[in-house]
Amino acid sequence: MRLSELGEFGLINLIRAASVRYQNPGRTPWRELLLGIGDDAAAWQSGDSIQLATTDTLVQSVHFDLGLITWEELGWKALAVNLSDIAAMGGIPKYALLSLALPAGLKVKDVSEFVDSFVHMAMEFEVAIVGGNVATAPNVVITVTIIGCSKGKTMLLRSTASPGEQIAVTGYVGVSAAGLEMLGGKTVSDPHARNILRQAHFKPVPRVKEGQILIEQGVRTAIDISDGLVADLDHICESSKVNAKINIEQVPVHPVVTAHFPNSQELALSGGEDYELLFTADQATVARAKRALSCPVTIIGDITKEELPTRVLVVDSKGTIIPYKKGGWDHFKNAVSHVEFT
Amino acid sequence: MRLSELGEFGLINLIRAASVRYQNPGRTPWRELLLGIGDDAAAWQSGDSIQLATTDTLVQSVHFDLGLITWEELGWKALAVNLSDIAAMGGIPKYALLSLALPAGLKVKDVSEFVDSFVHMAMEFEVAIVGGNVATAPNVVITVTIIGCSKGKTMLLRSTASPGEQIAVTGYVGVSAAGLEMLGGKTVSDPHARNILRQAHFKPVPRVKEGQILIEQGVRTAIDISDGLVADLDHICESSKVNAKINIEQVPVHPVVTAHFPNSQELALSGGEDYELLFTADQATVARAKRALSCPVTIIGDITKEELPTRVLVVDSKGTIIPYKKGGWDHFKNAVSHVEFT
Repeated sequence: MRLSELGEFGLINLIRAASVRYQNPGRTPWRELLLGIGDDAAAWQSGDSIQLATTDTLVQSVHFDLGLITWEELGWKALAVNLSDIAAMGGIPKYALLSLALPAGLKVKDVSEFVDSFVHMAMEFEVAIVGGNVATAPNVVITVTIIGCSKGKTMLLRSTASPGEQIAVTGYVGVSAAGLEMLGGKTVSDPHARNILRQAHFKPVPRVKEGQILIEQGVRTAIDISDGLVADLDHICESSKVNAKINIEQVPVHPVVTAHFPNSQELALSGGEDYELLFTADQATVARAKRALSCPVTIIGDITKEELPTRVLVVDSKGTIIPYKKGGWDHFKNAVSHVEFT
Repeated sequence: MRLSELGEFGLINLIRAASVRYQNPGRTPWRELLLGIGDDAAAWQSGDSIQLATTDTLVQSVHFDLGLITWEELGWKALAVNLSDIAAMGGIPKYALLSLALPAGLKVKDVSEFVDSFVHMAMEFEVAIVGGNVATAPNVVITVTIIGCSKGKTMLLRSTASPGEQIAVTGYVGVSAAGLEMLGGKTVSDPHARNILRQAHFKPVPRVKEGQILIEQGVRTAIDISDGLVADLDHICESSKVNAKINIEQVPVHPVVTAHFPNSQELALSGGEDYELLFTADQATVARAKRALSCPVTIIGDITKEELPTRVLVVDSKGTIIPYKKGGWDHFKNAVSHVEFT
């Protein structure tokens, strides 16, 4: 069997199974481990605090096209996707390691722009670059690891959603996927719209402060939207053993997407890389979080009891079921994305 | 200018300069940072303890040849080179993140062997696999991050060597480089010797416990031999602003190397990837460390006052200066190795 048949979730399960088989729960690292493979970041107890760690890899021609993205944008995005995983835990990012596998023929000027953008963004998010690795390689592969800590004694998890809770999302969805369509050739003539779409795809802003505010307001369940709204909601449902029902008319599709993309609904449900936070909580907590956050927060549905096989139901206001593509492509079966398992 | 002209140390300096330019020493992550770019691992204060982090990348056809190494050996080596960086700090490795960029056409059986070996070795060294990333890529790129902590309140550093101290090394040197020559075609007919050479190159044993014992015995300065004995001693000299003088006749070349390789001296001085610990301390401390360690420990020379430009002097017992190749290839200028900067 080949990886293309096993698929990326199959591979992650293979790694998880091996790591469970060889663990030694009585010994220190396992005894202190709070979250291993399966959430947005790993977490363990370290003295009084909870430490977090996450890693993400971007591969040339798989995750980005050097003919489309600038080196400055790539530096931003490489850090942003990792910070978003810490945001999804409600954590504080602190230290970054940067591993660069690069062709020797690259221009120093380009690599400098990448590094400058990466480090400048790190400063803005108060993350110190403490090390890494450089190596030659036939194509660009960037791996970033972020180590941080929790805000207080709790974290945002995927596994804590309960039936009856509301489902809410920060900001707008579908913009990054629409940006990718534009970059792939779809004509968008309005320069203002073009700018919003490009920024959303290449320079997403991780919701780090927002994740911390969710924790402070008592929210316990969240994920960042990297695979797509439905796919990431499905991850919450799977981890929490619940179902979800969302109303398509309440999903906050960005007006630029609605205006220029006839498939805006599909982009909003199944397009990934928005890096917004999707969270669940009881009505009062969601209302409190909404007041505390300065970004838009939209309630899009409810958590319901587990009833397999369809975990996420999408309906309109009349109750009509809306079919959707799940999104969250399989890396080895359809090579367009990646899956982090911290 | 291209990376091939800048070189890998130029690139690391570029990253270090940017990270210093954008640091904010008054703010939390920088205020708690003990060691950033420039030692075997990064280190920061976290409550009462010192946290360590290091990352290393192995690139197919650059660091390994899938026609020579087995997947089981690759799983071992990918973890071993990272554990060795924690060993060089005298630290305790605790958590590992594994990022795999893999062609979709790989056999699941092969990847399983890699994972099983990686995770099994992690268990032996009491390291928990807590997460990672999988992505498709045209060639195999493996990035491992290890997070650990210090043994007590101190670390082994590169920057603390003083004139008058002895220089000592654990185990034997030159075996891994000799193994690489054998794998490259050099005939070694003795099967026992072949086995030792292959193991040394593909399954180095990181000196994790030994690093911790060095700390306990009062040693303060060490590095692991990844670039080569002279190149790594040069790193200590550069960081500590000292010189070093070693006696070629005292260097512990493995008898298998002496027996089969006419260039054994060069392999011992300039061949890398031995993953032994090279350390310096006063005579009494070295003697104490030697008694406490169960592996061979050989005193090979002394730290002297800084006198540029030749930092590391190699002599024989008559005092004749022995010329040497420095080793520690530049990744972008001569693509045969890699440089980690944690």
